[in-house]
Amino acid sequence: MLTFTIRQLQSYTRTKYNKKEFTNSLFMKLVEEVGEVAEAINKNDGRKKDDGLSSLADELADVIHYAVAIATINDIDLEQIILAKDQVASKKYNQSPNLFEYLANSND
Amino acid sequence: MLTFTIRQLQSYTRTKYNKKEFTNSLFMKLVEEVGEVAEAINKNDGRKKDDGLSSLADELADVIHYAVAIATINDIDLEQIILAKDQVASKKYNQSPNLFEYLANSND
Amino acid sequence: MLTFTIRQLQSYTRTKYNKKEFTNSLFMKLVEEVGEVAEAINKNDGRKKDDGLSSLADELADVIHYAVAIATINDIDLEQIILAKDQVASKKYNQSPNLFEYLANSND
Amino acid sequence: MLTFTIRQLQSYTRTKYNKKEFTNSLFMKLVEEVGEVAEAINKNDGRKKDDGLSSLADELADVIHYAVAIATINDIDLEQIILAKDQVASKKYNQSPNLFEYLANSND
Repeated sequence: MLTFTIRQLQSYTRTKYNKKEFTNSLFMKLVEEVGEVAEAINKNDGRKKDDGLSSLADELADVIHYAVAIATINDIDLEQIILAKDQVASKKYNQSPNLFEYLANSND
Repeated sequence: MLTFTIRQLQSYTRTKYNKKEFTNSLFMKLVEEVGEVAEAINKNDGRKKDDGLSSLADELADVIHYAVAIATINDIDLEQIILAKDQVASKKYNQSPNLFEYLANSND
Repeated sequence: MLTFTIRQLQSYTRTKYNKKEFTNSLFMKLVEEVGEVAEAINKNDGRKKDDGLSSLADELADVIHYAVAIATINDIDLEQIILAKDQVASKKYNQSPNLFEYLANSND
Repeated sequence: MLTFTIRQLQSYTRTKYNKKEFTNSLFMKLVEEVGEVAEAINKNDGRKKDDGLSSLADELADVIHYAVAIATINDIDLEQIILAKDQVASKKYNQSPNLFEYLANSND
């Protein structure tokens, strides 16, 4: 089955977005998409009539798209920072396995 | 080098978050983190005095953390949706290779 | 000319929203509207094709609507807090007149 | 008792912010404050340890501050648009009195 790492996603993203000065513009798009996630949740919760025009899955993917794009143009290695932050959180909340250990034992 | 797929990250996330009814709470955390991304960008752009307490890398990782968590508890397969949306966007904007083709030719 | 105070707007809002437990739901709507402000700004800046479906004025009014609603159901006196915060900020940044002084000299 | 209209608040705001090109920067600040409202609600709901550093009242006032500032530099008459939108909504949802009628009968 086709699967891909966050590192690969960032490499691909770099072919599309590569200028650090677009940080602001990409963040403005991210905020727009966060609003659409809110809208999708509001529809799911019955706070808004569902017109079938937005879905939680689509809008979350858009949020991740722009977050990854902003990270990429700012030379942020997301896998590294996710692992590091997870290590701190796992220690703080005394959770085991942490992501590093989980991956070491994973056959995915 | 250790690397991981979004699928693996979702599997790991499932060990921590698994109840669909936490969608709202996790989204409230996501909004908090989006505000901190704004704060980090504002500091980088000189709109706010930098006190070293937040970094763009950390805050983006937090946004991705909560977006992945919300997707996971709602049984959303992020890799699948990212590939599908990329295929549509690449066709629309006449861009090549798309993510699928990029991964097929990648040696990462 | 018809004009109205924030206090009057809060009194009117109280006839529509009055349960503190709606804080979360109203905030979810606020986030949706903040996304639409982002969309309106993105259109104005040419980051998105303008389809005439949203306007900055409408979306800002919606943000204020929900912010006032959340304040109202939580018994927050917005005029009082706006005056108090302005006094602190004016002192900090050495600005004069502050809002209180401005209103005292205003004939609006 | 001192009270003030939104029109007066916009006049005062105009003495501080007056360049339309600051729309983006002010919106970035607004997003930061929306995140802090989320944080305050998360604390109130027990999703986050309360350190007493942010309050719902303060953060909502900040959101309104930046929304009013963006409206002001874009020459948006908030009272007019609030009245117009309320008229449409009241008709749509068959609610009475609307804001206009409420103010006409108000002795505040």
